[in-house]
Amino acid sequence: MSASTPARVRTARPLRVDLGERSYPIHIGVDTLDAAGAAIARCAPSTRAVVVTVPGVGRRYGAKLQRSLQRAGYRVRRIVVPDGDASKSLRQLRAIWDEMIDFGADRQTPVVALGGGMVGDLAGFAAASFLRGVPFVQVPTTILAMADASIGGKVAINLAQGKNLVGAFHQPRLVWMDIGTLRSLPARQRASGLAEVVKHGAIWDAAYFAGLERAPAALLDLEPSVLIPALRRSCEIKAQVVSRDERESGVRKLLNFGHTLGHAVEKLGRYRGVMHGEAVSIGMRFAAERSESLGRAPAGTAERIAALCERLALPTQIPDHPRSAYLSALGVDKKMSDSRIDFVVLRRIGSATTVSLTPREILPRKVGSGRNRKRKG
Amino acid sequence: MSASTPARVRTARPLRVDLGERSYPIHIGVDTLDAAGAAIARCAPSTRAVVVTVPGVGRRYGAKLQRSLQRAGYRVRRIVVPDGDASKSLRQLRAIWDEMIDFGADRQTPVVALGGGMVGDLAGFAAASFLRGVPFVQVPTTILAMADASIGGKVAINLAQGKNLVGAFHQPRLVWMDIGTLRSLPARQRASGLAEVVKHGAIWDAAYFAGLERAPAALLDLEPSVLIPALRRSCEIKAQVVSRDERESGVRKLLNFGHTLGHAVEKLGRYRGVMHGEAVSIGMRFAAERSESLGRAPAGTAERIAALCERLALPTQIPDHPRSAYLSALGVDKKMSDSRIDFVVLRRIGSATTVSLTPREILPRKVGSGRNRKRKG
Repeated sequence: MSASTPARVRTARPLRVDLGERSYPIHIGVDTLDAAGAAIARCAPSTRAVVVTVPGVGRRYGAKLQRSLQRAGYRVRRIVVPDGDASKSLRQLRAIWDEMIDFGADRQTPVVALGGGMVGDLAGFAAASFLRGVPFVQVPTTILAMADASIGGKVAINLAQGKNLVGAFHQPRLVWMDIGTLRSLPARQRASGLAEVVKHGAIWDAAYFAGLERAPAALLDLEPSVLIPALRRSCEIKAQVVSRDERESGVRKLLNFGHTLGHAVEKLGRYRGVMHGEAVSIGMRFAAERSESLGRAPAGTAERIAALCERLALPTQIPDHPRSAYLSALGVDKKMSDSRIDFVVLRRIGSATTVSLTPREILPRKVGSGRNRKRKG
Repeated sequence: MSASTPARVRTARPLRVDLGERSYPIHIGVDTLDAAGAAIARCAPSTRAVVVTVPGVGRRYGAKLQRSLQRAGYRVRRIVVPDGDASKSLRQLRAIWDEMIDFGADRQTPVVALGGGMVGDLAGFAAASFLRGVPFVQVPTTILAMADASIGGKVAINLAQGKNLVGAFHQPRLVWMDIGTLRSLPARQRASGLAEVVKHGAIWDAAYFAGLERAPAALLDLEPSVLIPALRRSCEIKAQVVSRDERESGVRKLLNFGHTLGHAVEKLGRYRGVMHGEAVSIGMRFAAERSESLGRAPAGTAERIAALCERLALPTQIPDHPRSAYLSALGVDKKMSDSRIDFVVLRRIGSATTVSLTPREILPRKVGSGRNRKRKG
């Protein structure tokens, strides 16, 4: 996004995630934080509001959001949690509950998540569980959270034994995306977020995928004319999938494309070094290769996935760990159901399905060190 | 229930709580634990099942339920938590999650609560939150849990600041009531459970209330011919209310009759000494008196409530604490919404409504020491 981007509010027609009485709008605009308070007040009227954020985001955007909420009539309590996935903990959850009690929060008090996926997951589970559920609003400030994490209602914290082991399905009342907040996002985080955008094209919409192939640099540069339609389409796809399958028993599993191995990569890297989108990129290339070797996808499918990811500055090579470590990491993947995994494979770019496989069937041979490079078609 | 009660399984036509795709059956019988496993397997098929219970109940009924689950094909892990409301804690919740992970529980693994309301609340929140929700089954073993706590999907734990501050709405797949398990229930706990039965009559069904007035001794003696129809009617009423209002925004509030002051009584007694049903009995008499003094209920209403409770060996006198302590206890009642409370008043026996009052309006004068005895009609 260049400095010459017009400062005027630009907004698109709001999307809606259609879930009956739990339906909610998604608003995408540029420099719209000033208007967030009034929009939140329409969805979650109350005298108090809680904003959960992290230090950097809070410093940059907290005051603007807070003033906007105050103009809309809220008393506001800002709760700042430390950066990093380690904050998706029982300890931070407890700290948020304590602050909410101290603030006098009641069943009408909205919890507003201002930040990336970690903040949304943590604040969302606090909202889901406090007094058995209070209103929740997402104000995502990363591409990853805008394109993926803030849509769908999945919220969770980690335990020592694994990620997202405890949580809820708690739909937000509103998702408010201001892509102006992305300007401060480091390049590596931009790329990481775009991995989920690639995923949506890969599993659902070949034309969208082809559009992304034409504009990787503009996406990384946050060009509104390219990024807004992409976020919009990604949200539409995720919203469509979620609407059909709110509690993840069927079609929603397709959103796990690239995530089975991706989670293992993150786990084996101890959630340091490899970002979520980077792990998903590695996992998508791997899953596309397995789609080909299982005879599900035509030759060249994995090549296109890998090429787009690489043009988005995303890694695609599996980190070097023993196969036994990967098998063990897959075995505790939370999607397991009696040791079989619904592994997402592509039928072609734009269409996916699941195959029930054991960890050994997913990883039939040694991985890492480039030994798993795709065979040339 | 006398020793001559026939040992044959007696069952009534199962009730259903109608909540669309979250509907579930309630089964009431005598000595039916042997058949629970097969019924659970129909609602929550899986290779593993977790049973959460307390020491005494586990010793008496754990093995029977476990064998029944094993015959139905489950591997079973029994998790025993200490007796008492103090177990509705983050610490015990954490211990259950840890055991479930250790056991290899997945998204299909049902959590079966075998015990009273505490076990149902704790195990229910574990089920609601583990992997964002796994199947939940209630096997209540107290009158309180059968008549009230096991129906409706409200699950929660306590924090240091108050009771039930954190939880979820998580509907069970099945509620399996074996009134044979009540034989080991101490007299005081029987009485305490019957307070909620009285409440259902008071707020919803005058004929049912009148029926209870005719048979208090048979209820305390667990006579199946009296107790089964009473539990059935109580469950019907609660199911009806819950079906209309799953998330407690409207008519479901009527179930709080007697609970506003009741919670304060429990809180000021530090949850020792006064049992939940005893506190509800005290709260119902108080709320009925306020219904009269607010001009909502005819004179004599509170008298009938008090008389029935007393014949059920329940206390009705407000314990002696300063009014300021009661006001403060009401102020943090979790039903508060910006300092006003939807206080449930009777219009007459069998019909209730709510009035929005501040704590000071609920308690306009000194309480305790019998100074609040009802005025003679």
